[in-house]
Amino acid sequence: MKKSSPRSKSPKGPVWGGRIAGPAGKANLAFCAGWDVRPRPAADLALLPYDLWTNRAHCIMLMRAKTMSRASLRRILSALDRIEALAESGRFTLRPHLEDVHLNVEAFVEKHEGIEVAGLMHTARSRNDQVATDMRLYLRERVLEFVREAIGLADVLVRLAKKNATTPMPGLTHHQPAAWTTFGHWAASHAAAFTRDVRALLDLYAQFNLSPLGAAASFGTSWPIDRAYAAELMGFDGVQTNSLDCITNRSEFETRVAAALAVWATHAATLAQDLVLFSSPPWHLIRIDDAFVTGSSIMPQKRNPDFAEAIKAKATLAASIAGALLGLTRGDPSGYNREQQWSKYLTMDLFDEIGSAPTVLTGALGSLALDKERMYSLMSEEYLEAADMADYLAQTRRVPFRAAYRWMGQAVRMSEKDAIPLVDAVNRILDKESSVRPLDPDEEGTLSCPGCILMRRSSAGGPSPDAVEAHCEELRESIRALRTEEKRRARAIDNARGLLRRTIARCAR
Amino acid sequence: MKKSSPRSKSPKGPVWGGRIAGPAGKANLAFCAGWDVRPRPAADLALLPYDLWTNRAHCIMLMRAKTMSRASLRRILSALDRIEALAESGRFTLRPHLEDVHLNVEAFVEKHEGIEVAGLMHTARSRNDQVATDMRLYLRERVLEFVREAIGLADVLVRLAKKNATTPMPGLTHHQPAAWTTFGHWAASHAAAFTRDVRALLDLYAQFNLSPLGAAASFGTSWPIDRAYAAELMGFDGVQTNSLDCITNRSEFETRVAAALAVWATHAATLAQDLVLFSSPPWHLIRIDDAFVTGSSIMPQKRNPDFAEAIKAKATLAASIAGALLGLTRGDPSGYNREQQWSKYLTMDLFDEIGSAPTVLTGALGSLALDKERMYSLMSEEYLEAADMADYLAQTRRVPFRAAYRWMGQAVRMSEKDAIPLVDAVNRILDKESSVRPLDPDEEGTLSCPGCILMRRSSAGGPSPDAVEAHCEELRESIRALRTEEKRRARAIDNARGLLRRTIARCAR
Amino acid sequence: MKKSSPRSKSPKGPVWGGRIAGPAGKANLAFCAGWDVRPRPAADLALLPYDLWTNRAHCIMLMRAKTMSRASLRRILSALDRIEALAESGRFTLRPHLEDVHLNVEAFVEKHEGIEVAGLMHTARSRNDQVATDMRLYLRERVLEFVREAIGLADVLVRLAKKNATTPMPGLTHHQPAAWTTFGHWAASHAAAFTRDVRALLDLYAQFNLSPLGAAASFGTSWPIDRAYAAELMGFDGVQTNSLDCITNRSEFETRVAAALAVWATHAATLAQDLVLFSSPPWHLIRIDDAFVTGSSIMPQKRNPDFAEAIKAKATLAASIAGALLGLTRGDPSGYNREQQWSKYLTMDLFDEIGSAPTVLTGALGSLALDKERMYSLMSEEYLEAADMADYLAQTRRVPFRAAYRWMGQAVRMSEKDAIPLVDAVNRILDKESSVRPLDPDEEGTLSCPGCILMRRSSAGGPSPDAVEAHCEELRESIRALRTEEKRRARAIDNARGLLRRTIARCAR
Amino acid sequence: MKKSSPRSKSPKGPVWGGRIAGPAGKANLAFCAGWDVRPRPAADLALLPYDLWTNRAHCIMLMRAKTMSRASLRRILSALDRIEALAESGRFTLRPHLEDVHLNVEAFVEKHEGIEVAGLMHTARSRNDQVATDMRLYLRERVLEFVREAIGLADVLVRLAKKNATTPMPGLTHHQPAAWTTFGHWAASHAAAFTRDVRALLDLYAQFNLSPLGAAASFGTSWPIDRAYAAELMGFDGVQTNSLDCITNRSEFETRVAAALAVWATHAATLAQDLVLFSSPPWHLIRIDDAFVTGSSIMPQKRNPDFAEAIKAKATLAASIAGALLGLTRGDPSGYNREQQWSKYLTMDLFDEIGSAPTVLTGALGSLALDKERMYSLMSEEYLEAADMADYLAQTRRVPFRAAYRWMGQAVRMSEKDAIPLVDAVNRILDKESSVRPLDPDEEGTLSCPGCILMRRSSAGGPSPDAVEAHCEELRESIRALRTEEKRRARAIDNARGLLRRTIARCAR
Repeated sequence: MKKSSPRSKSPKGPVWGGRIAGPAGKANLAFCAGWDVRPRPAADLALLPYDLWTNRAHCIMLMRAKTMSRASLRRILSALDRIEALAESGRFTLRPHLEDVHLNVEAFVEKHEGIEVAGLMHTARSRNDQVATDMRLYLRERVLEFVREAIGLADVLVRLAKKNATTPMPGLTHHQPAAWTTFGHWAASHAAAFTRDVRALLDLYAQFNLSPLGAAASFGTSWPIDRAYAAELMGFDGVQTNSLDCITNRSEFETRVAAALAVWATHAATLAQDLVLFSSPPWHLIRIDDAFVTGSSIMPQKRNPDFAEAIKAKATLAASIAGALLGLTRGDPSGYNREQQWSKYLTMDLFDEIGSAPTVLTGALGSLALDKERMYSLMSEEYLEAADMADYLAQTRRVPFRAAYRWMGQAVRMSEKDAIPLVDAVNRILDKESSVRPLDPDEEGTLSCPGCILMRRSSAGGPSPDAVEAHCEELRESIRALRTEEKRRARAIDNARGLLRRTIARCAR
Repeated sequence: MKKSSPRSKSPKGPVWGGRIAGPAGKANLAFCAGWDVRPRPAADLALLPYDLWTNRAHCIMLMRAKTMSRASLRRILSALDRIEALAESGRFTLRPHLEDVHLNVEAFVEKHEGIEVAGLMHTARSRNDQVATDMRLYLRERVLEFVREAIGLADVLVRLAKKNATTPMPGLTHHQPAAWTTFGHWAASHAAAFTRDVRALLDLYAQFNLSPLGAAASFGTSWPIDRAYAAELMGFDGVQTNSLDCITNRSEFETRVAAALAVWATHAATLAQDLVLFSSPPWHLIRIDDAFVTGSSIMPQKRNPDFAEAIKAKATLAASIAGALLGLTRGDPSGYNREQQWSKYLTMDLFDEIGSAPTVLTGALGSLALDKERMYSLMSEEYLEAADMADYLAQTRRVPFRAAYRWMGQAVRMSEKDAIPLVDAVNRILDKESSVRPLDPDEEGTLSCPGCILMRRSSAGGPSPDAVEAHCEELRESIRALRTEEKRRARAIDNARGLLRRTIARCAR
Repeated sequence: MKKSSPRSKSPKGPVWGGRIAGPAGKANLAFCAGWDVRPRPAADLALLPYDLWTNRAHCIMLMRAKTMSRASLRRILSALDRIEALAESGRFTLRPHLEDVHLNVEAFVEKHEGIEVAGLMHTARSRNDQVATDMRLYLRERVLEFVREAIGLADVLVRLAKKNATTPMPGLTHHQPAAWTTFGHWAASHAAAFTRDVRALLDLYAQFNLSPLGAAASFGTSWPIDRAYAAELMGFDGVQTNSLDCITNRSEFETRVAAALAVWATHAATLAQDLVLFSSPPWHLIRIDDAFVTGSSIMPQKRNPDFAEAIKAKATLAASIAGALLGLTRGDPSGYNREQQWSKYLTMDLFDEIGSAPTVLTGALGSLALDKERMYSLMSEEYLEAADMADYLAQTRRVPFRAAYRWMGQAVRMSEKDAIPLVDAVNRILDKESSVRPLDPDEEGTLSCPGCILMRRSSAGGPSPDAVEAHCEELRESIRALRTEEKRRARAIDNARGLLRRTIARCAR
Repeated sequence: MKKSSPRSKSPKGPVWGGRIAGPAGKANLAFCAGWDVRPRPAADLALLPYDLWTNRAHCIMLMRAKTMSRASLRRILSALDRIEALAESGRFTLRPHLEDVHLNVEAFVEKHEGIEVAGLMHTARSRNDQVATDMRLYLRERVLEFVREAIGLADVLVRLAKKNATTPMPGLTHHQPAAWTTFGHWAASHAAAFTRDVRALLDLYAQFNLSPLGAAASFGTSWPIDRAYAAELMGFDGVQTNSLDCITNRSEFETRVAAALAVWATHAATLAQDLVLFSSPPWHLIRIDDAFVTGSSIMPQKRNPDFAEAIKAKATLAASIAGALLGLTRGDPSGYNREQQWSKYLTMDLFDEIGSAPTVLTGALGSLALDKERMYSLMSEEYLEAADMADYLAQTRRVPFRAAYRWMGQAVRMSEKDAIPLVDAVNRILDKESSVRPLDPDEEGTLSCPGCILMRRSSAGGPSPDAVEAHCEELRESIRALRTEEKRRARAIDNARGLLRRTIARCAR
């Protein structure tokens, strides 16, 4: 496997220097660095672009519903443009005494265009539906981004699987070498899990891409609003109808997404643990590229798979955030309750923690080196072929599987005790069974060769090269479909942005 | 609302006697009684029917694949029939020293038909894929049952909503009366949430109705098995391909289902808390039927909504079980690890705890009595109309909403301080504004009448009778579609049972 | 109760204006505002003061152990002083490419004093024990601060209890008025819980105030260090002996503290929910001061108890953080694993979220107004005296309690059905019992007067004025002892600072 | 290490037969078997002995308070004796329609002694304080049992530590061999953690050994009860004073205990993972005795450390139960709410799951075999001495640690690349530094010998034999103190049983 690692180009490496040749990958460093030296920005700063969108859509709709004059609309839109320009150059600051992004935006409009137009913006809405809409827009983009990266990760795993469909390696149960499998089979098993995760996220997307705007405080409004039109301007598939439902269950989709991401993260943690184990010296089946290892501040020889451990930590965080979201309003009555506010931070923390995890994993997997010899030598002492032999005896000697299994149990013990090859031990045992033919040299050869054993393990979904290839085809098909769906969703958002832009331009005329 | 409560007919009521007229509903009692006086049976007893199914499908497939003779198959099937008959009359006991249901079944076959046929059953499989398949069958039926009951609950809420589309009641925010809404709007908001929950469960069903059988220990098998055929005999839509994926991620779907049910339970807890609050004496908007309240062992006047509190407790349990399932194998490497076993108990605990929750809620809602007068009188003192007045002034007096909102803030304070009606306070304030016309008597009437106010709150999804009716139609449509899907799934399982029965009959000939 | 609310003096109030007379309390606003408009600083910024302390103690110890010259020490100490000075004026920034506070500090020393002295600082230690020590210092101060505020909260509750030992109010079970109690009894029950919480935190303090410094990477060091002396310079009670234990279980105390704070927060959530319920219009037993309520952006009449809801949200967060800390390294082998790093953020998030909760609750309780009339009138209709009557009949009419209880059950039903006073209903029922003397007018009076009823409920820990007084005395005693212990701990930290300062001064000579 | 394994004596082994010589340990099998083939009894069956105690203490107290005649008391006590006798022979069954153990007991007394005496039992109490008292008695005994076993586990670890104070083994960081340590140092690190856990449990015991009896429904009683006397008869240290606090916070101590046990279980999971890793073939530092491994149903060579994986699973359960207990009543107002009931099952599940975990671990550790040669050979290739060399160079060549650390980093790379011994690589590098003396043969010897290296790592709490010995002494001292405290607590319970027996005997006269 070629090493083409995404190393950072910074001239000065980290303190641990020494054994690790190149400077560590920047993405990896940032991923592992956590919040040690980076601040976390105010939550509503992340909401600002979405709040502008919600405001624009709402005000245009109000104008179309004759609740606001075209002149007032123009002045509001122009103030919102100024906010956007300031924000893009990092010069729009949220003033704490104005509580949140919504009131900061309204205050800015008031300051620049006067109370008589700013005072119209909050017509027919409450901060309750406004923040719910902002968060829906935020959630939608974060989920799509994540989906894109998670598909990339599944894809790199399928590539690894195809490339290594014939690379024998030990398969584990109970943390122990259990039976021969292939690196391809292993890689494809992870790809399958990640593919399901993306499926689940896109299923959710189809459910949550609905607009809560117009729900107001919880109980609708007497203003003649057109919720569907505002939804269209924001690229939603429609509206979430019942206004009380919109507010009571405001964070339901955040919760569902968090649960889905926690399942993803659990899958990622399993992959991470495989990488930690397989790259540790006692195993050393794989070598993680220098760009993805970290040194120790006092042990110069260490090459630590910190990114994989960070992923495990983040899997705990993701599960804990999902649990917190489930618990946040449990036991509250319907309608808005202030607890909801914390769903915002939990959701943002979730994406801040695991948003780049698929990318980092993709990088680490893409630059992985396999030590195929070690796989072979290390594993050849562990009787990995015992179950295959039991099957073979049952298949060729016409005895029930359980009987063959028991022979093999004895053979393993004998081989260990008397330090003889397993095939010899088997033959000694078969010798004692009058009616059973011992293994001949051809058979012995077949049963001692991982490649031959694996070739025979050809049940659907098994580790034989053909079975792995077939599974890879199935996965490719799924990935292609998921990618198409993701693209369609992303395009719909772009289209809505276009529609909004054109509508604003028309208003400005 | 007519009271037709599902009371138990037992001649002797519970100890608390007294104020509660009839004996409490049996389902309710059992639901609240928990595990105080009921034991929880061994987990594998619940798996037995599914283990028999897995065994039958596996052995028939082995016979078709020429791995087992028809004669051996017949003897195995006949022994399995005997187990089933014993189990149905409660006489099949699991012997603890045989570890689990799989070995108990195999031992029974061995005892009655000999090792030479029993020894064939475990050909081409491991307990790993066997239990995964049993659990998939278990999960499938529990989910469908739950879906059926949850649809029933959504349905009763839509009925309540239609019936009460014009019943004014206070809407809450922050546990406080906030604005007029209707009981119908409230009921429909809960129906909407439960409808989404069912949608999510059926989406999951489509993903998990796949067979892991044939994955063996994790790494497939060299026996010439036909996984698709066995899957068909069990009513699966196909196979879960990668064998390592089947075992590593064995409890993934249990976890996803648990998360989905935890969301359902959170919704149910909100409904439960609404019932607790609204039925408590200081509110007393509703009266829970005697069949669903519980007395106190020392306070004879109490009518406690224990079932609703039990639902809240169970929502905590459901979330905690989902969290435990997420955490159980986190950080483990791929392949089977013994931690998986506990996913079985967690899943069963989940269904044992919340399986009947939708039914109990349906019963309680179906027998609810509304105190409409109280709704009206209690709420009339709380200025629920203030936001509506602000809207009205903004709409009719051509002032920005914010300005109207501020007038109303002053008016509420004045009304409270000077103990004058809110409309009078409004007029006093408007008097001071030279250019604004005060409210005339017609306007005053409209703004003091909940029905009129609600009629005006006609935004899509709002509480106006028309909006509620429209939402109910939308919900009915969804419920109809969900019911159709549920029925189709249930029929597919029945069909598979039929196919299995016919295939067995053919084998027996 | 006198209202003396800690209102902010800012000239401009929040947007909701109107009904809420004064500008809201700043502490309350900040508490509720969450992270909407405030960034969360880099974690290691919060560690900086502790990292300086650790560095100073470590280097002084190295010098005393002859591992560093006095001249080198002086240069290091002087550079550390410069960092401190910069930090105090907000001008010390953590450079991200230097990973963490430890390397930033070392790099600063290197830049200003050269590698030849900076290179000595990391002698005989690893970042593993360094960060563990920093966190122990951090934890220690946060816990003591919390303890101080939590004692203040318990204290204000005891004051409320003493003041209201004779104020009748309804006691709840199942969210319903159940029996007469006093406001004093209620307040004392919360004080008791908070007192236990402080006890638990101080018990923990006694366990965790030990130094991990010197554990190095996990396996000690060959340098001749004096761990006890460094511990003394940092005010620890001693060292945590086993070096592997120090690192493997680095976040154990954070976890224990988080669990203890989660229990505190659960208690606080119960108190918060009591305040939410009792201040809501249908109850209205209490009035929360304007400084602690929040308005609505569209409903001008609302007075929302947001701080109490925020406390409930934070209780969920605290429990979730405790769970995340428990899960973070579960299943890892011993020694350092990178997952540990996230324990830092979780711990800081915990204190950032709930650190000021006791103070806010103390403020809200200190400015609470009771509506004693409402307590009396609202509750007089709910048969709160029924259980007391049952007791009275059993005591005076020589019948078993169960028999009296059943009479009362009938009486409640009759009173409700026939709309007659409960005492009349009781007498009608007693009339039917030939041998039982009906209630005479004196008895009727006693049983209809909350004060008289409460006077009789004089069991230890009950709501009678004497029992409440006695409990308050017990609580005061506990609070006094806790305060003494907290002060002693705080003084020990101050003393260590003094010792450090004097030692540095001596070195500088 | 001598193998003296607690094997079961059953003649027939488990199905997996073969390689595993003897029949597996029964305790281990039961521990791993979970609930597959064992039912979980009704919760209140476990409470029955405690409910009888509570009843006896309460009724004796009532008699002494003149509220019950001596004759009635005698009849009640005699009926309670009959229940006890029936229960001991498994013939007392809880009748489900009687809801719980309390009403079942009362009904039994009523049936056998008549309503006129049974009707007296519920005088001055509610089921609320009754079940709280039962649970306190239950909790107390379970905690003491656990403490006893957990002390045993710490003790066996200290023995292992003393015995292996000079056995070199690789110490881990990041799942990788990092530095030489000793098996004794490793064992002592776990002993230290478990010792703290016991300390925490006994601290809690001191807080919770108080009686809630007499709190009644939440609000005390007007009967002249003597709570202190009843508490004495049950062996409590006193009463939990405030009656509302007793009921609102009924499950607080269950929660605190669960959190403490979850920390214990996290420690146990770390130990378990160490055992899983170290016994897995790629490491094979230790061999778990046959009595504690499990086979595979299809791979005859497997020796799976299922008990250790079960412990990891149970650590997840313990944390999840602690979380559920924290969440169960969060957000409820004060007073009794039905959610509390589920705290009973959660608490019992906790002890049922992890109660025997210390015992199983003690057994597995007691029968562990170390492969010392393997420890040495496997680890000698991993540059474990690199940090020690860096220290040595810094100590002897008068260069700052950082400089020495950087040399060693280069040396490790050179040794790896050029396949030369590390000491040679070091000398090549030192050769280039004009002023630094290379390592002489003596030095080379010292730095290549684990024993010499470890001897030098003699900082307090480090892995040098002396440091380990010293830590073991400290641990022994702690264990001795904990054992004394545990015994004192157990004796106090026995004494209370004696007092109760004597008091009953006196009443019966």
